[in-house]
Amino acid sequence: MKKLVPLCLLAMVAPVSAQQRLVSPEVLPDNRVTFRLRAPNAKEVTLRLEATKVPPMTKDDQGVWSVTTEPLQPDYYVYSFNVDGVQVIDSGNPLIKRNLFNSESMVHVPGQDLAWDVADVPHGVLHRHLYRSAIVGDDCPFIVYTPPAYDPNARQPYPVLYLLHGFSDMEDAWTSIGQANIILDNLIAQGEAKPMVIVMPLGYGNKQIMTGGWSVLRQGNVWQDSVEKFRDVLLKEVMPQVERTYHVSTDRTGRAITGLSMGGTQSLFIAFNALDRFAWIGAFSSGGLDADFDKTYPAVNESTRSRLRLLWIGCGQQDGLLRVNQNLVDWLKTKKLNPTWVTIPGGHSFMVWRRFLAQFAPLLFQEKP
Amino acid sequence: MKKLVPLCLLAMVAPVSAQQRLVSPEVLPDNRVTFRLRAPNAKEVTLRLEATKVPPMTKDDQGVWSVTTEPLQPDYYVYSFNVDGVQVIDSGNPLIKRNLFNSESMVHVPGQDLAWDVADVPHGVLHRHLYRSAIVGDDCPFIVYTPPAYDPNARQPYPVLYLLHGFSDMEDAWTSIGQANIILDNLIAQGEAKPMVIVMPLGYGNKQIMTGGWSVLRQGNVWQDSVEKFRDVLLKEVMPQVERTYHVSTDRTGRAITGLSMGGTQSLFIAFNALDRFAWIGAFSSGGLDADFDKTYPAVNESTRSRLRLLWIGCGQQDGLLRVNQNLVDWLKTKKLNPTWVTIPGGHSFMVWRRFLAQFAPLLFQEKP
Repeated sequence: MKKLVPLCLLAMVAPVSAQQRLVSPEVLPDNRVTFRLRAPNAKEVTLRLEATKVPPMTKDDQGVWSVTTEPLQPDYYVYSFNVDGVQVIDSGNPLIKRNLFNSESMVHVPGQDLAWDVADVPHGVLHRHLYRSAIVGDDCPFIVYTPPAYDPNARQPYPVLYLLHGFSDMEDAWTSIGQANIILDNLIAQGEAKPMVIVMPLGYGNKQIMTGGWSVLRQGNVWQDSVEKFRDVLLKEVMPQVERTYHVSTDRTGRAITGLSMGGTQSLFIAFNALDRFAWIGAFSSGGLDADFDKTYPAVNESTRSRLRLLWIGCGQQDGLLRVNQNLVDWLKTKKLNPTWVTIPGGHSFMVWRRFLAQFAPLLFQEKP
Repeated sequence: MKKLVPLCLLAMVAPVSAQQRLVSPEVLPDNRVTFRLRAPNAKEVTLRLEATKVPPMTKDDQGVWSVTTEPLQPDYYVYSFNVDGVQVIDSGNPLIKRNLFNSESMVHVPGQDLAWDVADVPHGVLHRHLYRSAIVGDDCPFIVYTPPAYDPNARQPYPVLYLLHGFSDMEDAWTSIGQANIILDNLIAQGEAKPMVIVMPLGYGNKQIMTGGWSVLRQGNVWQDSVEKFRDVLLKEVMPQVERTYHVSTDRTGRAITGLSMGGTQSLFIAFNALDRFAWIGAFSSGGLDADFDKTYPAVNESTRSRLRLLWIGCGQQDGLLRVNQNLVDWLKTKKLNPTWVTIPGGHSFMVWRRFLAQFAPLLFQEKP
């Protein structure tokens, strides 16, 4: 058969193709990573790579800046360049951490048998739904993970985990950055987690909080309004659609909720005020916690413990929010709630939250010992 | 109830929040659009906005470069900045045109009753599948659109459209940039298109074509190998999974295929060599076409016409590929195939392909007049 040599297409893009493609990032066999950016006129280009310390970038005679790191532990790392004061993503790398206010690039250093690396196991399916929210006054998405071999006619309904993202994230943060679906695929294949449905809604209750940038955190009313309205979005809009569409438990013992940062705070706020709905609660690196827990969670008392199957609080040891989360744990103990309290090395980062999900999910929906 | 004033979270991100958020892009009420980028040290910042002519950007005393366009026709526009020679996306705008080699930003100028704008109509669902492809030797995704009120037990199976992306696109190009699901939601709500399932696979048959940049177009063997292997991916891997999982027609009269650029070429190559599988064929702005059509499509002859329900060829009038597509149409006419041939103003851009899908989809799966 004749070759389909694409000369016409090439001619069209000649101005682009004339420039040799830069490989960036390049993961070397020993897990060092080389980053490259063409910026012939820049005075200084630097690389931000999570919280790691990286050497300065240097420019070659072609105007390409580059740097090679020390060997990195296998993981997903977020990074961006700074070109003379302008933050720049690596536009030739399609692995993007999309964010409302500050998108960055990601590099994947693959490892052996890591919770978040795609393995040759059966995969679940991600379903993206869109609906017009009367509460938000906007078209809102939510994503549903169904586990491998999900059967809408199974004898028992599936338990369901509501999994919330952080402030400035979008609805796909837990799947595109957090690898939640891959983590569950792996845990289920290993028999470590029960097959479950996971629901990941866009976590904002009003439009202002999505457009104002980080400065809306100074406007307590916008934040508070969003947290309260998002509770209604979840309980009155998303949950009924999920329960109509998927074969999921409608019993509190078949429902869990957790989230990261803002999503951790939302999980606690929603679940502690709706214990008739949730029996399994997590909160990862919660942000936006008021120190006056008695006033925030008036429904929590010494009888709460008997209603919970799990209360799991985690925070990275280098996270600026460690202290307020420790205070939360101390307060929960005064209420005899005896939460599981986990800290691991790391900052306010998905590097911590992927590990937390991999620890948290196996505990869910297990029978009492 | 006590306010959840998020001071802890704010303290953590103070260095970020201290800087006022730039609004960019800002769509003004008269459809002019203002673009802004903070680059105090840059000598020159320019804006590329599709094929439109935009005035130079100017810098204010805060180091913010900005420009306001003339009023724009409602549409999605792709854009990026160029800062002293470095292409920069608008990192505070989460609307990103993700691409293997060159991601850019997008701005949405909403209109009235446009085919691709979200309306208050029932929405279909997007399903993302992942599987290990023996042919590609990699984990490959495909996305399936099910129409609103999709019923897996409906009396009649749904017809199915295979919809292919262009070279350097990713599997979500037709949904995140092309708005294919929104276009179908709207057409179905208006009774203009039959409810159908749409399948959007990642369109590469080998890994080299995904990593080599545009210069692989000079390597005919990589391209050719990818086109041939992708045919097998589609027919032997994706199609069987789709037909096992969804309630879709397995009759050629219930199957259509089309695509853009590389995907148009793939659609013709696959369908003309598998007329037992497809009765409805489209090709939008096909790229990578060899001028020797007799050798590329040996199965096409004067009896082909009777087997086709539709053969639809389109190209933008300012597209560098217009001529080769015109040549293709002329050749098809010599074979008595009498294709529908549509040209509209526009270049090699999703601005054209969204319109083509909105014209093409209503023609599919209709009874012969």
